[in-house]
Amino acid sequence: MGSGPGGLPTPEWTRGYDRATFSSDWVAALIVTLMLIPQSLAYAALAGLPPEVGLYASIAPLLLYAAFGSSRVLAVGPVAVVSLMTATAIGEFAQAGSPAYWTLAITLAFISGAMLVLMSVLRLGFLANFLSHPVISGFITASALLIAAGQLKVILGIQVEGHNFVELVMGLVRQAPHTHLLTASIGLGMVAFLFWARRSIKPLLIRLGLGPRLSDGLAKAAPIGGIAVTALLTWAGQWHSLGGVRIVGAVPQGLPPLTLPSWDSSIWQQLAVPALLISVVGFVESVSVGQTLAAKRRQRIEPNRELLALGASNLGAAMTGGFPVTGGFARSVVNFDAGAQTPAAGVLTAVGILLAALLLTPALYYVPQAALAATIVVAVMSLVDLRILRSTWAYSRADFSAVIVTLLVTLASGVEAGLVAGVSLSLALYLFKTSRPHIAEVGLVAGSEHFRNVLRHQVSTSPQLASLRVDESLYFANARALEDRINALVASRPELKHLVLQCSAINDIDASALESLEAIDHRLRDAGLRLHLSEVKGPVMDRLQRTGFLQHLSGKVYLSQFQAVKELAPEIVGQSNRPIEGVSG
Amino acid sequence: MGSGPGGLPTPEWTRGYDRATFSSDWVAALIVTLMLIPQSLAYAALAGLPPEVGLYASIAPLLLYAAFGSSRVLAVGPVAVVSLMTATAIGEFAQAGSPAYWTLAITLAFISGAMLVLMSVLRLGFLANFLSHPVISGFITASALLIAAGQLKVILGIQVEGHNFVELVMGLVRQAPHTHLLTASIGLGMVAFLFWARRSIKPLLIRLGLGPRLSDGLAKAAPIGGIAVTALLTWAGQWHSLGGVRIVGAVPQGLPPLTLPSWDSSIWQQLAVPALLISVVGFVESVSVGQTLAAKRRQRIEPNRELLALGASNLGAAMTGGFPVTGGFARSVVNFDAGAQTPAAGVLTAVGILLAALLLTPALYYVPQAALAATIVVAVMSLVDLRILRSTWAYSRADFSAVIVTLLVTLASGVEAGLVAGVSLSLALYLFKTSRPHIAEVGLVAGSEHFRNVLRHQVSTSPQLASLRVDESLYFANARALEDRINALVASRPELKHLVLQCSAINDIDASALESLEAIDHRLRDAGLRLHLSEVKGPVMDRLQRTGFLQHLSGKVYLSQFQAVKELAPEIVGQSNRPIEGVSG
Repeated sequence: MGSGPGGLPTPEWTRGYDRATFSSDWVAALIVTLMLIPQSLAYAALAGLPPEVGLYASIAPLLLYAAFGSSRVLAVGPVAVVSLMTATAIGEFAQAGSPAYWTLAITLAFISGAMLVLMSVLRLGFLANFLSHPVISGFITASALLIAAGQLKVILGIQVEGHNFVELVMGLVRQAPHTHLLTASIGLGMVAFLFWARRSIKPLLIRLGLGPRLSDGLAKAAPIGGIAVTALLTWAGQWHSLGGVRIVGAVPQGLPPLTLPSWDSSIWQQLAVPALLISVVGFVESVSVGQTLAAKRRQRIEPNRELLALGASNLGAAMTGGFPVTGGFARSVVNFDAGAQTPAAGVLTAVGILLAALLLTPALYYVPQAALAATIVVAVMSLVDLRILRSTWAYSRADFSAVIVTLLVTLASGVEAGLVAGVSLSLALYLFKTSRPHIAEVGLVAGSEHFRNVLRHQVSTSPQLASLRVDESLYFANARALEDRINALVASRPELKHLVLQCSAINDIDASALESLEAIDHRLRDAGLRLHLSEVKGPVMDRLQRTGFLQHLSGKVYLSQFQAVKELAPEIVGQSNRPIEGVSG
Repeated sequence: MGSGPGGLPTPEWTRGYDRATFSSDWVAALIVTLMLIPQSLAYAALAGLPPEVGLYASIAPLLLYAAFGSSRVLAVGPVAVVSLMTATAIGEFAQAGSPAYWTLAITLAFISGAMLVLMSVLRLGFLANFLSHPVISGFITASALLIAAGQLKVILGIQVEGHNFVELVMGLVRQAPHTHLLTASIGLGMVAFLFWARRSIKPLLIRLGLGPRLSDGLAKAAPIGGIAVTALLTWAGQWHSLGGVRIVGAVPQGLPPLTLPSWDSSIWQQLAVPALLISVVGFVESVSVGQTLAAKRRQRIEPNRELLALGASNLGAAMTGGFPVTGGFARSVVNFDAGAQTPAAGVLTAVGILLAALLLTPALYYVPQAALAATIVVAVMSLVDLRILRSTWAYSRADFSAVIVTLLVTLASGVEAGLVAGVSLSLALYLFKTSRPHIAEVGLVAGSEHFRNVLRHQVSTSPQLASLRVDESLYFANARALEDRINALVASRPELKHLVLQCSAINDIDASALESLEAIDHRLRDAGLRLHLSEVKGPVMDRLQRTGFLQHLSGKVYLSQFQAVKELAPEIVGQSNRPIEGVSG
């Protein structure tokens, strides 16, 4: 960033900004604005907040992200999963729709924003890495199912209470006979229209002779078109009073209010963990969207600047009556596809939403809630990815169990428990895996200088010399596994005189593992054997040299396993001269 | 194990048991018995239990370990650190010395034994590996300091209360003017005698013409000799009534009682965590002693059988009025040095202690408590190892911080908090370290087929090709670090066409990392680059082949980094023919 007038930072993209770039940006902004208006209302409803709060949460965050963010096309605002997490976090402490509830949402956005800024300052962005891909997949799919089940009651016009997926589904089944037919017609009709529009509207418009760019833009506006049609029908038929269809109702017209979070420390304590989870989930979602889009134009995003920008966006949301926000996938892709070149597109989108908040809210009066719920259901169903179950099952049981546990715990006990269970399980499985390193006894491939697993290959070995290759860094959790393996080997081979550890895959040795190596060396010496090392990596060697280990080692350190064997068991070298390919592994 | 009469298991060492072996075993048993009598009384006092409980805890456990254990020389019974942990665990819930307190100790041994047996059945012995060497060192040193500080008040004959090391030391300083001089003379005299005896008694006896074996045995009996002398003096001077010296007093004479744990579920809940910590600490201590001694005779111990044997020992302790036990370092080394050949030595030791419980207890009446405390102080001071601070500081800051945090938290907040803090910190540091893998850009060493870090070595590179070597397995916590690194590289090198990942140090790729590799590949393709892999290990390759990754990969998989470069950037191969040494790293 440079420095502009008044000391404010001037992002680099402002240099060389011209008419052509502006033209691209405003077209993109228009399309995104049309898409965001119904989405903002819908996600506010999902979070249990009044509809205008969704608009507020889409203005300041877009401006602040444009000022601080490193992605040129990321669009920040309310998203489905974070809205659900918001509802879960504050639903315990206040009644949805009440002023206290809104204050809690503002406070949650504030804490989350402060945490993100702090993570940026302390460079703690790597914490997000502990949300593994299987955990995120399971979590997003489960959240989407929870959201869809929750919105179905709005679509059907029935009352259902449930704290988990099973309760929600059971409630829907029990209450299904009480379905409000007119509401359900609007809701299910909208769902059908949106699914149809997503697939078919663009090809249809192209066939009708419109250009592909315009057709695409109009296809993106299908949700707002559908919302407008249902609102018009509701107004014309007075369905809200005559037919009992629930509508959005009066939405205040005006600028976003200036708001402050609650400073009650007990509230902060209650919201700290949810805010942390929202921060991390929002950051992961936003960064992965940003990276994917940046790479398409060979640009780059800086994770640390993203933390700052998302933090500022959430603080901004908190101070203008909004709720937790992050970079959304759908809106960012639309922004990118619509040709946005710079963050000015975000600024223009913010202006568009601001105009909607100032001028359009009376037109929202007749929008049926079922139509908004339909846009949510259609949006979140694209997040459901059950193929991950099959693909992780095929790839690794550990990853599969992380997916399925996160998915099931989220469905059964909610978003927070699901995330915590998934992260804990994946860490435990990783530690378990590294605590049982793959240790192969290797032998010389005849006629080469290569060593391979004696169990997999035809190799030469000596009864007096054993070569072990450890395929893992040595640290406290696996050091004793190596001791056990060597103890077993030595106890079973009375004729053994030399043991060589091939260290080519050992990237680190911690103090516990060093202690184990010393213990191994002492025990081998007591038993009349010598311990040698080969192919020790540079950084590991540097560290070992800072201790007395190498001086006291009963054997030697060889540059290669072949040199070790040539010196210690020359009889097995050159037994055969059959040449083989130089494959490692 | 075979099967003997009545279906009981017959350990393998019973075959070929002869008179010579028996002779070795009973000499060892005699020496260990003489050593164990004062130690058992002292550790019972340390645990806050009546002295006879120490004897009880040394009988059944020795017999059960002999039946189930895999070490031939391990001696099981009360040890210092576990006794301290016992006092800490149950001190909260009952008054030391009360019948309720004893029941809690029995229950703790029972739960701990049940957990060990369960860990054996479920093969969970690897859990003990998560107690890293730095954590154990810091913990043992801090425990020893806590024990010594606690025993000093007994030696000085003063009353001090304190919940942590600082409070204990402050209390000792404050109460020092009230020192009971006769008690302190006995206690400090005994400390001085024991330190002198440990170093000088054996050489002295040898100089006096005794054989080295006998001298060694007599040196081992120094504590019981000292105890006997102080008891005689106390009896002769009637110091307990006239001089106010605290004595052991009446010790019941007889067989260990048959006891049962409390079945109160709230007590089990309170004791579950302490019992788990005692189990793991006891197991780690016991296995490391057992392994060290087994290796000296080229024998082997089986960690899983050790879990079972220690579990049985603790269940046995619980059913015969004892408290938590484990394999002790000092007594096992004495047993080994005294020539014990088989677990029969343990059986004979148990008989010796049983005879002491039946016959000797009246003789214990006059033993001054200060003399017992002196034996504890001298025993635990050998556990204090502050050199570990300097050595881990030199070796690695992560290991050093694990030592110092465990040490300080144990001193400040007690044994349980110390262990939990140490284990949590070492896991967090390990995860932090692996989440930031070492990724080196490598180039070709001229005239060779070797690749080295471009920052450390003079190597050939091409502007169109970048080679990265990742020195860590790829998993969820570090996959995005690789993405970031590659994004930065590609953004900074507009002329780049090929990226080769040298995978020689990648021992595993999990589903998150695979996802990242796919994302990297897509982004590189979008940016007009190709991603290649080289030197992929067999098991990693097997797993990748189960996915579509290799089919969709924009580039190729090469057997060696050299082959990749020869094909992709032939101009840098053969620029020079200067031969160099074949060092890896």
